[in-house]
Amino acid sequence: MNKTDQYETVALDEERHALLILDQTRLPGEVKMLALTDLESVWQAIRQLQVRGAPAIGVAAAIGLYLAARQIKADRYAEFLAAFTKAKDYLATARPTAVNLFWALDRMAGVVAEHKDADVKTILQHLHDEAVAIRVEDIAMCRSIGLHGLQLIKDGDGLLTHCNAGRLAAVRYGTALAPIYLAHEQGYRLKVYADETRPLLQGARLTSWELTAAGIDTTVICDNMASQVMKNGWVQAIFVGCDRMAANGDACNKIGTSGLAILARHYRVPFYVCLPTSTIDRKTATGQDIPIEQRAATEITGLWYQRPMVAEQAKVYNPAFDVVAHDLISAIITEHGILCPPYADQIAALPAWSA
Amino acid sequence: MNKTDQYETVALDEERHALLILDQTRLPGEVKMLALTDLESVWQAIRQLQVRGAPAIGVAAAIGLYLAARQIKADRYAEFLAAFTKAKDYLATARPTAVNLFWALDRMAGVVAEHKDADVKTILQHLHDEAVAIRVEDIAMCRSIGLHGLQLIKDGDGLLTHCNAGRLAAVRYGTALAPIYLAHEQGYRLKVYADETRPLLQGARLTSWELTAAGIDTTVICDNMASQVMKNGWVQAIFVGCDRMAANGDACNKIGTSGLAILARHYRVPFYVCLPTSTIDRKTATGQDIPIEQRAATEITGLWYQRPMVAEQAKVYNPAFDVVAHDLISAIITEHGILCPPYADQIAALPAWSA
Repeated sequence: MNKTDQYETVALDEERHALLILDQTRLPGEVKMLALTDLESVWQAIRQLQVRGAPAIGVAAAIGLYLAARQIKADRYAEFLAAFTKAKDYLATARPTAVNLFWALDRMAGVVAEHKDADVKTILQHLHDEAVAIRVEDIAMCRSIGLHGLQLIKDGDGLLTHCNAGRLAAVRYGTALAPIYLAHEQGYRLKVYADETRPLLQGARLTSWELTAAGIDTTVICDNMASQVMKNGWVQAIFVGCDRMAANGDACNKIGTSGLAILARHYRVPFYVCLPTSTIDRKTATGQDIPIEQRAATEITGLWYQRPMVAEQAKVYNPAFDVVAHDLISAIITEHGILCPPYADQIAALPAWSA
Repeated sequence: MNKTDQYETVALDEERHALLILDQTRLPGEVKMLALTDLESVWQAIRQLQVRGAPAIGVAAAIGLYLAARQIKADRYAEFLAAFTKAKDYLATARPTAVNLFWALDRMAGVVAEHKDADVKTILQHLHDEAVAIRVEDIAMCRSIGLHGLQLIKDGDGLLTHCNAGRLAAVRYGTALAPIYLAHEQGYRLKVYADETRPLLQGARLTSWELTAAGIDTTVICDNMASQVMKNGWVQAIFVGCDRMAANGDACNKIGTSGLAILARHYRVPFYVCLPTSTIDRKTATGQDIPIEQRAATEITGLWYQRPMVAEQAKVYNPAFDVVAHDLISAIITEHGILCPPYADQIAALPAWSA
């Protein structure tokens, strides 16, 4: 069964003037689409991770802000701008560290600023078009990453991924999973191994769901089983996403990615990082300069059985991310093409990201 | 607070004629000692993992069989032997793959065979002494492993371990944790990092409990965080146990151990395997010859929230163990001393295990 046409991660329902999202907090047990029509419910959906993944959050925020703008009762620009800015600033508080959220909201604000001499109806049309453009551009960018990455996959390959950098994190395709979706579209027979990705289990809950929904053969493993899977010779390549890349190619991604890269080197399995060039922060020299977010101990101690799973007096260390050293990355796959090591000069030569 | 004197993993209560065990299924939330007096409850305790860990199971079985023998109503040897053998065979079915279980039961049966001309009361005394000896020998063996391993620890060290190869898996000290306990007794200030050890969380549930109960500074991490912890420079040595070692030094242990050894090599952290020489199977040439037990998918899919955590159509791979290649092991710590690489000749030269 192919369920991929039955859901959208994030979309605009033009008829109902609603933001459609697939409620990711209910996966994999329940597939429930939400139709959100007011600012508060969009804020809540982002806050509560009903929609997650940097690209998807940006698109949801853009559509949500457009819908909020439609509800502004104002004829004059100044009045409209004040209400619009209030709505924008409110949405920006939903996930305080999500760069794509701010970027999308700023882009929408730029449209309002640009058309300050137009009437409100015209501005709304431009906001609509901008939100739709942000969404369409995301699809094109992910598809482009997928097409480039497709060159690195052969029919029959076993592929391993970590966390969720797939369709559920974007609009379609995703980043790390984009090459896999395109290979599947080509009829390649693939076996995908998905790390469950402790503590929050994005691999078990989300990646296994979206890949099997697309009809792709998917096997979930605990993170500590990746070594054995590679030793078995079952993995021909590893594809992961990236939350932030430094100018030298060091890649910050979900905790566990750096260990996976070290195993890949040991077992001589190519290790690919997939990302839009917007994720490259050329002002950050190396991975050492990327701060690692520490998260609550309860993510590790409290998820099971509704009773404590760790001794009360024990401490917990819970970093959300780690950094893969650039020299462990076999290639970086962007929407502009594949970068091969050494990366620093190629990254410097990339077109400035203007989206 | 030091709770170590408040519990026994496994012991004989001479007054109540009971097998005392700490119910490990209730940890870390509840510390409950069980006093088992009949064969059936001993069988259930082993079966349901209320007592676990190869050495602890062997001791529990020996004491349990002694207690069962006391309840045999027989004056003549033949009658006693028949009832004893029935009890022994029954206990052997509690965990069909636990080598120490069979070994301990056979050792008890040897006592009965040896004293076939004695009266039942005398045989019972010998069975009592043998069960007590098995327990005391285990303590001595683990302490000896600890003393040898202690040479590899310095005051102030950060140490990392995986799964539970501690006091809760033996009578006292354990294997991998024995050097840590002895260092702590010496007043060394240590920081221990315990991998939670998916899927069954022995590290989170048991290791964190027993180490903090002994007053040792312990931090629980998800398995996929070990790379970051080592990158931070927080780990000066890794100590793990072993379920079975081949003649060349390849070490089969809880799933995830092989990945940890590869990370240790990458970060130049020494990787030590602690085991009694009884765990070395000299008839097994290499790790390739050790079959890897596959366990139920539900261990991965079903532990959380009482709802499925993996997409229904996804497969699951759940190997219980993996094998650390001997060339990734910095040293092997046994009750007879420390073996340094290359291991094959030193393993061949070890005294035959006669316990």
